[in-house]
Amino acid sequence: MTSILVIYASDYGNTEKMAQAATDAIAALADTTVVMKKAEDVTADDFTGSDGVLIGTPVHMGSMDWRIKKMIDTVCSGLWMQDKLNGKVVGVFASGGGFGGAGGGVELTFLAMLNNFAELGMIFVPLPKMIEGYKKGGLQWGPYGRSADEDMNHGGVSEEVLALTGKHGVHLARAAKALKEADIFA
Amino acid sequence: MTSILVIYASDYGNTEKMAQAATDAIAALADTTVVMKKAEDVTADDFTGSDGVLIGTPVHMGSMDWRIKKMIDTVCSGLWMQDKLNGKVVGVFASGGGFGGAGGGVELTFLAMLNNFAELGMIFVPLPKMIEGYKKGGLQWGPYGRSADEDMNHGGVSEEVLALTGKHGVHLARAAKALKEADIFA
Amino acid sequence: MTSILVIYASDYGNTEKMAQAATDAIAALADTTVVMKKAEDVTADDFTGSDGVLIGTPVHMGSMDWRIKKMIDTVCSGLWMQDKLNGKVVGVFASGGGFGGAGGGVELTFLAMLNNFAELGMIFVPLPKMIEGYKKGGLQWGPYGRSADEDMNHGGVSEEVLALTGKHGVHLARAAKALKEADIFA
Amino acid sequence: MTSILVIYASDYGNTEKMAQAATDAIAALADTTVVMKKAEDVTADDFTGSDGVLIGTPVHMGSMDWRIKKMIDTVCSGLWMQDKLNGKVVGVFASGGGFGGAGGGVELTFLAMLNNFAELGMIFVPLPKMIEGYKKGGLQWGPYGRSADEDMNHGGVSEEVLALTGKHGVHLARAAKALKEADIFA
Repeated sequence: MTSILVIYASDYGNTEKMAQAATDAIAALADTTVVMKKAEDVTADDFTGSDGVLIGTPVHMGSMDWRIKKMIDTVCSGLWMQDKLNGKVVGVFASGGGFGGAGGGVELTFLAMLNNFAELGMIFVPLPKMIEGYKKGGLQWGPYGRSADEDMNHGGVSEEVLALTGKHGVHLARAAKALKEADIFA
Repeated sequence: MTSILVIYASDYGNTEKMAQAATDAIAALADTTVVMKKAEDVTADDFTGSDGVLIGTPVHMGSMDWRIKKMIDTVCSGLWMQDKLNGKVVGVFASGGGFGGAGGGVELTFLAMLNNFAELGMIFVPLPKMIEGYKKGGLQWGPYGRSADEDMNHGGVSEEVLALTGKHGVHLARAAKALKEADIFA
Repeated sequence: MTSILVIYASDYGNTEKMAQAATDAIAALADTTVVMKKAEDVTADDFTGSDGVLIGTPVHMGSMDWRIKKMIDTVCSGLWMQDKLNGKVVGVFASGGGFGGAGGGVELTFLAMLNNFAELGMIFVPLPKMIEGYKKGGLQWGPYGRSADEDMNHGGVSEEVLALTGKHGVHLARAAKALKEADIFA
Repeated sequence: MTSILVIYASDYGNTEKMAQAATDAIAALADTTVVMKKAEDVTADDFTGSDGVLIGTPVHMGSMDWRIKKMIDTVCSGLWMQDKLNGKVVGVFASGGGFGGAGGGVELTFLAMLNNFAELGMIFVPLPKMIEGYKKGGLQWGPYGRSADEDMNHGGVSEEVLALTGKHGVHLARAAKALKEADIFA
C-alpha cells in the first residue's frame, strides 16, 4: 500500500480545488491511500506515515503562503534534524492571479518550497510538457492554476488545470510506490 | 533626511545582533534616521515612511522565517496592490548554522525575500566581494552570519560579520538617499 | 553624461527588437549615450565605460542563451576579480514562447543572469507592476516578450511589450545617473 | 541493465575529479554501466541511451560553465521538443573556490541546471544531510567541492568530497533503476 499526503493552503478556494482534484485522482488508484490536509493541521506523523507528499500554495508576493512556511519551520525542521523523510517523494502545484503573463513569481514560489523538501532528502517529480493540459496551466516544476485573467476577472481555476493536477498526483503516487521499494539512500 | 527601516526575525539572537550592528552603523550617518523592528511589529506606515529597507532572517529549511513571510503576506501585499513602495531601496542579510559549507540554503532564502521586494518595485543593493569582511561572511546577495561551525558548535556570529553587516547598512542608506531624489519610476 | 550598454542575444529577432526598443528610448534622453551590442561582441571596456547595463536573452531551457553565459565566463569574471563594476546599475529583459502560461522558466533565467551582476556589485532595477504594459508582458524582474501564443503561433513580441521595454531602459538610465554621482560603495 | 551518463565541464581538474569519483563508484555496481563525457562531446544519443544523468560544473559567476549551457541549448532543447527524456533521473554536483563561506552562488548554479532537467521531465535526486561527508561538502541539491580555502589557497577538492560524490552517484543509479521499471508518466 502506498500512502500519499496532500497539503495545501488556500484563500479563496482555488488551491483547495486543485488539492481536491489531485486527491480524487490518487484515491482512484489501486493499492494507494491518500489524506488531504490544510497546512496548519499537518503533524510530523502525517509526514512520516506517507510515502509521498504533494503540496500546493497560492502565490503570495513571489513565495509560498505563510501558513505553509509556518508548517515547514515548526514541523519539517524537526523531521530534518532526525533524518526522517529521506527517499520519500514530493511534487508541487500552485494557483495565482497570473498578472503580467509570466507566472507572477510562481517559479521562485515552487523553489522556496522545494528547498525544504530537498533538505528533507525527498525526490522531486516535475511536470513534463507532454502531459495533457500543460499548454495553458503548466510550468516544468508543477501545475499552475490561474484564478484570474489579465484584467483580473476572477473566474477561478479551469477544469483543464484541475485535470492536469490530478494527473500530476497520479505520477507522484507511482513514483512514491517505485521508490519506496528501492530504498535508494540505504 | 533619509529614513531606513531595519526588519528582522530571530530565534537565538544572531540575526538580531546583525540587525543591531546595521542599525548602529546607519544611525551614525549624517542626515539619516533608522528604526529597527521585529517582523511581527512592522506596519504599513513603517514601510511607507522609510526610504530604504534592510531585512534579515535566520535560514530555516532554505527559506525565510515564517514570521517574515507572514509580514509579507499581511502587510506588503496590500502595499503592492497600491503601488506604494516603488523606487525605494532594499538590502538583505541572514544567519544560519552553515552545515555543509555551501551556505545551507541561504541563497534561495535571500531570493525568496527579494521576490517580494522586486514585486514592490524596490531597487536592490548587493554586497560586493571587495567589502572588508566578505571573505568569511559574504554572499553576493548580502551578509551571511554563521552561528555555528561545521561540527555545530554554536559560537554565534563573529565580530567580523557584524562589522560587514554594518557596512552593508551604510551602503543601503547611501543608495536610498541618492535614489530618493531621483524618482526613477516617475 | 550617463552611458548605458544594451547587451543581447537573439535567435529569431525578438530579443533584438526588445533591445532596439530600449536603446531607442534611452537615446532620446538628455545627457545620455547608449551602445547596443550582441553578447559575443562585448568587451571588458564596454562594461567599464558604461554606468549601467541592460541585458536581454531568449529563454532557453530555463536559463540564458549560452552566448550570454560565454560572455559572462570570459569577460565578466575578469572584471569581478578586479572589482571593476561595483556600484553600476543593471536591468534585465527576455523573450520566450511562453508555452504553459507560467513564464516557461523566465524567472530563473533572470536570476541566473542577475547572480552574475550581483557578484559584480551592480545595483538592480526591477519592473514595478504599475508601469503601462506590465499587464501582458511583465514579471517583477523585468519585461518578458512572448514570441508565440499558447498554440505556438509565432506572431513575435507585441508593440506593447516593446514600449514597456523602452520604459524599463529609461528607468535604468535614470538610476544609473543618480547612483553614478552617489558612489555608495566608497 | 541500468545506464548512467556522467557529464562535466572542468577548468583546473577539480570538477573532473568529482566526475571520475562518481563514475568509478557507479561502475562498481551490479547490472549498471556508466559513461563519462565532457559537455562538448555529449550527443543526443548519449542522453536517450541512458536511464540517469549526473552532471557537474564549476561555479562561474553564480551559474554553470558556458560549455554546459551550450550543450543544453544545442542538444537538450531538441530532446525537449521531442519529449525524449521524461521519467529519467538526474543529479548534480559542482566545484568552486568557496570565497565568502556561503557557497559563492552554487545554489543558483544547481537550479540553473535543474531548470533544464525539469523541463526535460527528469526526476531529481537530492543529497540528504545524513550522507557521510556532507558536513564539509554538501548542499541539499548536491555535493559541492571546494577547490580553495578562504584565503584562496588552491588545495583542490578533498578526498572526503570525492567519496561523497561517489555515494551521490550510487543513489542516482539506484533511483534510475527503480524508476526505469515504473514508467510513471505513461
